[in-house]
Formats: sequence, structure tokens, C-alpha cells
Amino acid sequence: MHTVEELAGLIRNIPDFPVPGVQFKDITTLLTHPGALNDAVSLMEEMLKGLDYDAVAAIESRGFVFGSVLAARRGLPLILVRKPGKLPGATFRKEYSLEYGTGVVEMHTDSVPKGSRVLVVDDLVATGGSAAAAAELIRMDGSVPTAAAFMIDLCTLGGASRLREGGLPVYSLLKIEVDG
Amino acid sequence: MHTVEELAGLIRNIPDFPVPGVQFKDITTLLTHPGALNDAVSLMEEMLKGLDYDAVAAIESRGFVFGSVLAARRGLPLILVRKPGKLPGATFRKEYSLEYGTGVVEMHTDSVPKGSRVLVVDDLVATGGSAAAAAELIRMDGSVPTAAAFMIDLCTLGGASRLREGGLPVYSLLKIEVDG
Repeated sequence: MHTVEELAGLIRNIPDFPVPGVQFKDITTLLTHPGALNDAVSLMEEMLKGLDYDAVAAIESRGFVFGSVLAARRGLPLILVRKPGKLPGATFRKEYSLEYGTGVVEMHTDSVPKGSRVLVVDDLVATGGSAAAAAELIRMDGSVPTAAAFMIDLCTLGGASRLREGGLPVYSLLKIEVDG
Repeated sequence: MHTVEELAGLIRNIPDFPVPGVQFKDITTLLTHPGALNDAVSLMEEMLKGLDYDAVAAIESRGFVFGSVLAARRGLPLILVRKPGKLPGATFRKEYSLEYGTGVVEMHTDSVPKGSRVLVVDDLVATGGSAAAAAELIRMDGSVPTAAAFMIDLCTLGGASRLREGGLPVYSLLKIEVDG
């Protein structure tokens, strides 16, 4: 079983991706390390112990990795929160602000029974915009975003604080400080 | 435990998506059904019994769902095969033909130790182009694409046959006949 510190050591830093000045946290080196994904999700489950949720909403694309494993293990519904135009059925749609421009996420209507308590999952929280938008989609569908869970919190970017201020409890396995 | 037939019954048909004439097989209704994802991966594992593989390459984005669960369960390296420009490190790149135009997939160099036996995973095989491209990326990285595994084979489109002719064994849980 990997510890949180060992998992942190498996994440690679890529400078200047996708744009100059950004220190990109690359989790693919963690994912290709035998057993690390399974252990990461075990530690996330441990961190979420006591939280009451009956569905998982995973944000495209890297959120699919952690969200799928968590949902499958617990036998819970997995909702895909996707980029626009990818979901074939009727969808709710929510725009959110990015550092430059806007992003859009969509979710199928009637994804889960009304009143479900849905956990938002992504690999990483930066500014928190996509997770806040996912929470809003869950509300539009008549359910309750119960919390958001991340593998990594780029804590200097303030996303977790912003989500908490918006009423969404936030859980993250690793806190990483990055420059602005 | 859901049977293969029960899982098939959870897949929704969406006519004319993404373009008129296409019958889109929507797996999101399966994913939101409690326990179905876990059972689908259990049945995939059962189907792959006896196959020797020591890494999983999942194709963006729905392949991430099934590939992640399979890799996590078995404690195997998970390689992300992604759309262009998404992977931050040095990548191999492979173009493939789509019905109209071309697609591109990328994979990080040195994803797994040379000579690894890598299972390609996606939710669905249609023409087989992206899976064949993923297999080629695995070869470029000095490893061996040992087989391809899918939840669904749209068998009338001939992708599985084409992959087999190219030397890649193919496993699929559900065979669905579609027009066109």
C-alpha cells in the first residue's frame, strides 16, 4: 500500500504546460506505477469515510479515472460530466470561467433519481470552476451535490476555498503549492 | 451480479447521433445503474481469463472508465491514450482514418518498461481505427499490444475482424448489430 507521500512522489512536474509559466502536475506517471491508482482510490475512500453519498459524478477526462474506480468499488451510479456535444441524450449545460475565456460542461438529464446525494470527483482542483459547474448541473437535475473529492488540490489557486464558500465540502488527498 | 444480457438491456439507443443515420449506443444509462459498471468489468475480467497482460492502455474518454477499473483492480499500470495536445510530456503520435477525415491519438514515451504486454481497452469497437492506432503507439514504445478488449462490438462495422487481421486478438462482451 502506497502512502500519500509516496503517491505524491509519483506525480511529475512539467514546466510551461499547457502555456508558459504553468507548472503542470502530471498524474500519468502515478497511473503507470503498479498499484498506485488502486491505492490512491483506497486513500480517497478512507478520506471520505463517514460522508454519505449515493452517486459519483466524474468530470471529463482525468476525473473519469478516479471517479470510475470509486463508483465501481462501491457499486454506485457513475455520472459522466462531459465537454459539450459529447453526451447523446438531453443534457443540462453550465458555463464556467477559465483563466482565459469560458468552459462548458454538460450532464444528462435524469441521470440519477431526484434527491440523490452526488459526490463530484476530479483528479485535481485548481480554480474550482469545473467542479462548481458540475455541482450546479447536479442541482439542475434535482439532486444534491454532497461534496467534491480530488486527488490533488493546487491549494495556492484557491479553488477548494471557493467551493467551500459556495457551500460544497471539499476533500483532497494531496495539497500542492504552485506559483500563481 | 448482472448478466451480459442484463447489461445489454441497460444500454440506450440514440438515433441520429452524432450525425443522421447513426444509431448511437449510449452506455451512460448502464454506468448510472447501481453495480452495473463493476459487474461489466468483472465479466470483462472473466472473459480475459488466461490472457497474459501486465499493463492496460485506455483510450480517451469512455475507455478511461473501463480501463481504469480493470487496471486498478489488478494493480496494473494504466496508460492513457489521449487526443492530441492533452499529454504534457514527450509523446508518440499516430493518425488513423475515420469515416470522414482522420483522428489522432497520443501516448507518452516510456509509459511502461520495454517488452510489457499491454491490453488495449475501450468501451466500444466500431471500425477499429483508434484501437489499431493505440496498438501501434504501444509498439512504438517498445512494448507488445497483447489484445484489445471492449465492452461492445458493433460487429456489423467490421472493426474486430480488421484488428484480428492486423494480428491483435479481440475480446468483446456484447456484440451488437447496427445498420450502416
